[in-house]
Amino acid sequence: MTVGILGCGEMGAGIGRALTAAGHTVLTVLEGRSPETTARAAEAGMTAADDLADLVARSAIVFSILPPSAAEAAGRELASVAGDARGLVFVEANAISPDLARTIAASFAGTVTVLDAGIIGMPPSGEARPRLYYSGPRCAVLEQLGSAAFDARYLGPEIGAASGMKMAYAAVTKGTNALLTAGFLLAEEMGLGDAYAAELSSSQPDMFKRADKNIARLPADAGRWVREMEEIRDTFAAHGLPGGFHDAAAEVMALLDASRFGNETRRTIDRTRTMRETVQAITSDRARPAERHTLRKAEG
Amino acid sequence: MTVGILGCGEMGAGIGRALTAAGHTVLTVLEGRSPETTARAAEAGMTAADDLADLVARSAIVFSILPPSAAEAAGRELASVAGDARGLVFVEANAISPDLARTIAASFAGTVTVLDAGIIGMPPSGEARPRLYYSGPRCAVLEQLGSAAFDARYLGPEIGAASGMKMAYAAVTKGTNALLTAGFLLAEEMGLGDAYAAELSSSQPDMFKRADKNIARLPADAGRWVREMEEIRDTFAAHGLPGGFHDAAAEVMALLDASRFGNETRRTIDRTRTMRETVQAITSDRARPAERHTLRKAEG
Repeated sequence: MTVGILGCGEMGAGIGRALTAAGHTVLTVLEGRSPETTARAAEAGMTAADDLADLVARSAIVFSILPPSAAEAAGRELASVAGDARGLVFVEANAISPDLARTIAASFAGTVTVLDAGIIGMPPSGEARPRLYYSGPRCAVLEQLGSAAFDARYLGPEIGAASGMKMAYAAVTKGTNALLTAGFLLAEEMGLGDAYAAELSSSQPDMFKRADKNIARLPADAGRWVREMEEIRDTFAAHGLPGGFHDAAAEVMALLDASRFGNETRRTIDRTRTMRETVQAITSDRARPAERHTLRKAEG
Repeated sequence: MTVGILGCGEMGAGIGRALTAAGHTVLTVLEGRSPETTARAAEAGMTAADDLADLVARSAIVFSILPPSAAEAAGRELASVAGDARGLVFVEANAISPDLARTIAASFAGTVTVLDAGIIGMPPSGEARPRLYYSGPRCAVLEQLGSAAFDARYLGPEIGAASGMKMAYAAVTKGTNALLTAGFLLAEEMGLGDAYAAELSSSQPDMFKRADKNIARLPADAGRWVREMEEIRDTFAAHGLPGGFHDAAAEVMALLDASRFGNETRRTIDRTRTMRETVQAITSDRARPAERHTLRKAEG
C-alpha cells in the first residue's frame, strides 16, 4: 500500500520506518525541511513526493503527525488539495484538542474518510509499538496497516474522542513532568536543592525517579510541547475543568526551550548531564539573564 | 517538659500522642472545638489548657499545627498573648508560604525564639515518624523533644526555608494528586473513563497506582488543602515561577470539597469506594447540579 505521512519527526519517521520495513511505500513531503529531517526520512526508507498534491494523488491513506502548532494549517491545506477525492483516508493524529480535531475534520469534503487519532507511547522500535487510538468511522485499512507500526484501538464514531484520549493522557504524563520540573526549580531557587532531592528520593521514590529520568531530556522537546500544553488547557476548559495546570506547564516548557539546553534534539541531548545539573544551570541562568544572553551569543 | 500544641487535627494530635507517650505533658486549647477534635485530643492524652494565655504560661515550647487558613490569626494571637515572654520557643509548623511564615515570625517580640517548620510525612505511628524540617536559630530543645515524635532536620538560620521545603514538597505530591484527579475527571467527562484507566494502568502503572490509592480519599482533606495550594502558588510566584499548577490544584480541591464526598473525614471515609466510583459520581453530579443539590439536602 502507498501511505503518506505529513511530518517527519521522531514519531512520523518511526512509523514510516516500520511501514517501509513491512513492504509499504511511504511518501512524505520534504520541501523546505531541515537537513536533519531529510536525513531522518531517508534513514526511515521514506520516499519524497514532489509536493502535497503528488502525495495525495498517490496515497491510499495519509497520516498527519506534526508538531501540534502545524496541525491546523496542514490539515486545511491537505483538505484543499484533496478536494473531493474518493476513497482517500485522512488520519488526523496530532496532539490537539477535540475541538481543533473537529474543526480540521470539518474542512474536508464528505468524500474523504477523516479519522481522529491520538498516538500514545514511544515510536515503534523492535517489538514495541505505540498505541494509535482512533475514532470516526471504523476503518479496516487502518487496522490492517497498523499491525506493522502501531496497535490500533478504536474509540467509537465520534471525531474528538481519540484526540481527547491523547489530551487526557499527556495531561498527566507531560503535565507531571512539568510540575516536577517546577518543583525542582523552586527548591533550587530557595537554596534547598540537596535537601529536596534527598527527601523526595527517600519518601517519593517513584516521583524522584520520574524527575531524574525525564527533566534533563525535556528541553529537547519542550518547544514543540508548549502548544500541546495549550491544547490540553483548552480541552480542560471546554469541560469546565481547571486549565491552570497546563497554562503553567506551557510556561515551564517555554522556559526550558529558552534555556541553554533548548537547542538540543533527542539525538543531540547530552546524556551525561544529570537532572540536578540541568536544574542548577537553568536556575543560575535565570539569576543572571544578562550573562546568560552573552554566553548564548558566544556559543551560538 | 510541658509542650503546647495549637491544633488538634490528625498531625497535631498524632504528635501530641507521641509526646505524651514519651512522658511529656501536652497542652492544647479546646474551647469552641468540635466533639471529634475534643475526642481526638483526649485519645492522644492531651490536656486542655484554660485558654491560650494559660497554655503559653505553662509551656516551654509551643507548636502551631493548624489548617493553613488559620495559621496567621493563630500566630498573631499567640504573639500578642506571649508578649515579651523570655525563653518561650514558638514553632510555626503550618503549610504556608515562606513570606507568610516571615510575616508571622515578625509579629513576635525578640524575646520569643521563633522557628519556622514544615512537617512532611504521616503522623507518628509505631516506629514511623514524620520529618520536621526547621529553620531559624538551631534549637536543642526541639531536637531532643523531637526524637519521640518526629525526625528534626535543620535547614539553616533563615526563617522561610523550612516553609519553602514544605511548599516545594507538597507542590509535587498534592499537586500531582490534583492533576491526576483532573485527568480522570476529564476522561470521564469525555466518556473515556474505561479506556483511560486501562491505558494508564498498563503504560503508567506508578501513576495509576497513585491515582487509585489517593483520589477517593482526597475529598476528606480537600477543603483544608485549598488554602495550602494557594500558599504554594504564592511561593512559586515569589520566585518568578508559574503559579497556575496550584491555582488549578486549589480549584480541584474546592471541587472535591463541594462534592457529595466533601463531608467525609479521614475517619469516616468510605474505604470500599473505588477511585473510579468516586470520579464517576462527581462527574455525574457535575452534569446534574440541580438534582445533586436536592440529593444533598435529602441526605443532610
